[in-house]
Amino acid sequence: MTGTQRTPTRAGEGQTLADVGEFGLIDLIRERLRDAPQVELGAGDDAAVVAASDGRMVVTTDMLVEGRHFRRDWSSAYDVGRKAAAQNLADVAAMGATPTAVVVCFGAPPDLPVAWAVEFADGLRDECQEVGAAVAGGDVVASGVVVAAVTAMGSLQGRAAVTRSGARPGDQVAVCGRLGWSAAGLTVLSRGFRSPRVLVEAHRRPQPPYAAGPEAACLGATALIDVSDGLLADLGHIAVASGVAIDLDSSRFDLPEPIQAVAAAVGAEPLSYVLTGGEDHALAGTFPADVSLPPHWNVVGRVLEGEPAVTVDGAAYEGPAGHDHFG
Amino acid sequence: MTGTQRTPTRAGEGQTLADVGEFGLIDLIRERLRDAPQVELGAGDDAAVVAASDGRMVVTTDMLVEGRHFRRDWSSAYDVGRKAAAQNLADVAAMGATPTAVVVCFGAPPDLPVAWAVEFADGLRDECQEVGAAVAGGDVVASGVVVAAVTAMGSLQGRAAVTRSGARPGDQVAVCGRLGWSAAGLTVLSRGFRSPRVLVEAHRRPQPPYAAGPEAACLGATALIDVSDGLLADLGHIAVASGVAIDLDSSRFDLPEPIQAVAAAVGAEPLSYVLTGGEDHALAGTFPADVSLPPHWNVVGRVLEGEPAVTVDGAAYEGPAGHDHFG
Repeated sequence: MTGTQRTPTRAGEGQTLADVGEFGLIDLIRERLRDAPQVELGAGDDAAVVAASDGRMVVTTDMLVEGRHFRRDWSSAYDVGRKAAAQNLADVAAMGATPTAVVVCFGAPPDLPVAWAVEFADGLRDECQEVGAAVAGGDVVASGVVVAAVTAMGSLQGRAAVTRSGARPGDQVAVCGRLGWSAAGLTVLSRGFRSPRVLVEAHRRPQPPYAAGPEAACLGATALIDVSDGLLADLGHIAVASGVAIDLDSSRFDLPEPIQAVAAAVGAEPLSYVLTGGEDHALAGTFPADVSLPPHWNVVGRVLEGEPAVTVDGAAYEGPAGHDHFG
Repeated sequence: MTGTQRTPTRAGEGQTLADVGEFGLIDLIRERLRDAPQVELGAGDDAAVVAASDGRMVVTTDMLVEGRHFRRDWSSAYDVGRKAAAQNLADVAAMGATPTAVVVCFGAPPDLPVAWAVEFADGLRDECQEVGAAVAGGDVVASGVVVAAVTAMGSLQGRAAVTRSGARPGDQVAVCGRLGWSAAGLTVLSRGFRSPRVLVEAHRRPQPPYAAGPEAACLGATALIDVSDGLLADLGHIAVASGVAIDLDSSRFDLPEPIQAVAAAVGAEPLSYVLTGGEDHALAGTFPADVSLPPHWNVVGRVLEGEPAVTVDGAAYEGPAGHDHFG
């Protein structure tokens, strides 16, 4: 115990969650949140009340577990908070919706520094802020490792949801956002390096193209998904849900120089990072052939009739498959 | 009512999550879910779409961690699923709302039997079914111990939310539902016993009085909370949020025979279970003095002017305080 009197506004140096307690931590986080008009009632009651102006709410949930999805020595608390928000906000965008609010369950060991929890909450808040969403509430509990389960909500603003099941033969396949950067960054960290820094940063803090979700809906996307497990794996979900085949044109993909450098260092194909790397949360969609797409949507393939499968240049891709959490 | 509606899982005997994989588990669970009209788009896409008919959504989230909130040798998977749903559905009810849907993040070790995960999902589904809510989606990930983060949503059906902050001096304080049963059941299990069975069952599977939430709103409740940390602690939240004092009349509380038996066995006061035991998810509310309450609402005290505090028979209660997760 330090002799410093605890105040609700400032965590003392070296304080742990056990020092401030459950309600002390909640108070610390709550006062750092920002009001937002769509949050009619925010944190501090049994539940929040969030506006759902068109009478529907898009909702999705995802969990990050320390040691599985992040490491405290590889990512700052702030970045983990941003990533926890990003992967859920991207799922909302992948329905063609605009994120409005998140709630979060935060589990942590009692000896976790208070500063870590507060910086995590700051990251969550700031990533939400990027899309005009707000942290509307949450729960904190004790657990053996840090666990963060985020639920994100969003508004379709009267539009139909863009599901995975609407792709039709003849559609063009397009992607918006980075592919392979996070996976290449993980390779860098796994080998004990810290550069190329741009890849490490991409792994620590994905930059999903949130606005491209509602944009895709307005452009007439027939199917849409966020690339969390790898482009081939996630387009595979569209193929199965839509009952179509998808063929990609390998010449259409950029192979960024940092990814080429990492691939060369480990004897891998740069294209395998682009096609199978997850966690960048790019958006991948299918659009009718006559839709003229803006330049930030890169047309990379075509929807075909046939058994559900994703091929590259007409053949099965020989490389690592997508991620299975229990594999 | 706790109608058990379990059906045998089709997962092979002795299979683990590593055997069926992430997507195998998701498929197994999805096919056991039930459609509900308020779930416009259910599990299987990037996000679900849930109706929010009055243009607002009540939302709350809570996490259960194995070894902290349940033990696999003390509770069945089915009961943990019911409990994970119940604690969140009760929070929705405590806003005066009717639950409509839940989403769940489920983390588990790869060597967890598939049957455990499927029965957990069945419990979650069946508890939701009791209130007409549905499981709308979720996420499964690997983690060191079983972790379940449930987010519940609900509808206020055009009413104002009943918060913690509306209690006024002169209001009557009333509770609906069990108090102390779960805590007494935990005492039984902690001592290696299995009876009184009714207490053990109450610990394993709370029975929140869900319908009493919207009822309280219609009756004019000025504040409402669900008793998750213990009546004194949770009424304390109302006292602080409303800026009032609350005094309870100890003679108004039932002291059920099984709780008396357990209290006698451990040398405790039965009243301390009733006043400080959490996790039964009773509802506690404040109502204007002239409201005539139905008999399932037990008037136990009075709201007074004064510094925020909860007293019993006019004095501070000398006993264990509420639960602090990091304490």
